[in-house]
Amino acid sequence: MTADGRLSLNQATVKRLGVPEAVALCARHGIGAIGLWREPVAELGLAAAAAAVRAAGLRVSSLCRGGFFTHADPAARAAAAADNKAAIAEAAALGAGTLVLVSGGLVPGSRDIALARRMIADAIGELVPVAQAHGVRLGIEALHPMFAADRCVITRLGEALDLAGQFPADAVGVVVDTYHVWWDAALAADIARAGKRIVSYQVCDWILPLPADPLLGRGHVGDGYIDFPPISAAVAAAGYAGDIEVEIFNEDVWAAPPDETAKKVRASFPLAF
Amino acid sequence: MTADGRLSLNQATVKRLGVPEAVALCARHGIGAIGLWREPVAELGLAAAAAAVRAAGLRVSSLCRGGFFTHADPAARAAAAADNKAAIAEAAALGAGTLVLVSGGLVPGSRDIALARRMIADAIGELVPVAQAHGVRLGIEALHPMFAADRCVITRLGEALDLAGQFPADAVGVVVDTYHVWWDAALAADIARAGKRIVSYQVCDWILPLPADPLLGRGHVGDGYIDFPPISAAVAAAGYAGDIEVEIFNEDVWAAPPDETAKKVRASFPLAF
Repeated sequence: MTADGRLSLNQATVKRLGVPEAVALCARHGIGAIGLWREPVAELGLAAAAAAVRAAGLRVSSLCRGGFFTHADPAARAAAAADNKAAIAEAAALGAGTLVLVSGGLVPGSRDIALARRMIADAIGELVPVAQAHGVRLGIEALHPMFAADRCVITRLGEALDLAGQFPADAVGVVVDTYHVWWDAALAADIARAGKRIVSYQVCDWILPLPADPLLGRGHVGDGYIDFPPISAAVAAAGYAGDIEVEIFNEDVWAAPPDETAKKVRASFPLAF
Repeated sequence: MTADGRLSLNQATVKRLGVPEAVALCARHGIGAIGLWREPVAELGLAAAAAAVRAAGLRVSSLCRGGFFTHADPAARAAAAADNKAAIAEAAALGAGTLVLVSGGLVPGSRDIALARRMIADAIGELVPVAQAHGVRLGIEALHPMFAADRCVITRLGEALDLAGQFPADAVGVVVDTYHVWWDAALAADIARAGKRIVSYQVCDWILPLPADPLLGRGHVGDGYIDFPPISAAVAAAGYAGDIEVEIFNEDVWAAPPDETAKKVRASFPLAF
């Protein structure tokens, strides 16, 4: 399979489309896989969403997302566990092999980052048997350190990998997202170390200036500062041969006509190799 | 010396003051040290600035800053080298033992982050004999990864330390700035490994939301998310016993009356321990 055949459109890139419209867009543009999000899946209904992707012959490269494990209140932690178990079942129903985890920021009311990290490890441990029972792998995603306080205290691929390594490889892996990890001097070494633990590879570019909401500062591949080819080569050398998602959170991209976005995604994808 | 006696006001915290006003502010508030910046020093004149701090009995904890070594044009690299040599001489004249280095982002026109890192190592190597001749130590500062593209490709304390370790310890050390490194799971280990290579410790807080200019999003100690006491304890255990700078880039802080800022800095400083 060429790299082009491994292109997956993460639904967040065309955030304003529902599942049927996003699926149709992929079909129209010859994109063979899609990364789904739970909210639009729920909006359509799980069974209908699963039927839509199957009818279109699309692979589901991942389901986004589980996580947000860090809560001071035990009841909130239990609710997060239940919600993540539901997400695993949804991933299985959709035929997604990977559930992406955004693990959570500091515990509200606490500055103890080690506490947040322990809470995440405990929560993932509880999900392992559920993931194994459903044949879904949990993908721990390291987020850029600018999100450490409020979204994810797991800030480097190496850290995600150390965490994943505490659990069986058939249940827990890591996500490599170029936007979050491109700056890391240890990236190549950590990708090599990750090997078969890589369960998702997502690409988008780092552009400047950062927008008012730093969550929405991502660019199309090639529009920014990231040197993709060495990263993609390292991911391939590590043994990852799955779909490669283009996931872009950006108000301008969302405002563009989806067919233009799909064309741009297809056209820029080869720049990642 | 108590921690309180080690408080240094980095001049950037009261950016609108010239050297004489900043020195007088420190004297008025019983702050025994100051971190100076080259631009206001040049505005007053080097000799006059040195005389002002000496007359007030202030220690000069550091001079900010050198660096910005990454240029595509050899002439620009040579100019940066010359400017950094001048900065070393200025630090010596001011009695500052440390020149803080912000090393530079990607080389303009290139996405090769390894190239930028090699260029920085080469540039620092050229400065080593000059630093030794002047009795000044170069402090490599790891900047937060959100500045990797445009300001500093050295993004972690461990990376700064690996770089510093290529050179003699009397010439090159590392700066620990809480704002830039607080999120790093390896921080405690890297501080311990740094030991006597730590040549500056700077504190300010991570606050949210990030402002439009992410350079200016720093908060007073205690106003944000950073858990200072374990970091300060690790820095002390590593053997650093020098001044501790409060360095806050923030438009609101700059707009406040300097005496109010100095009071707030003094009052919040104990929260860092």
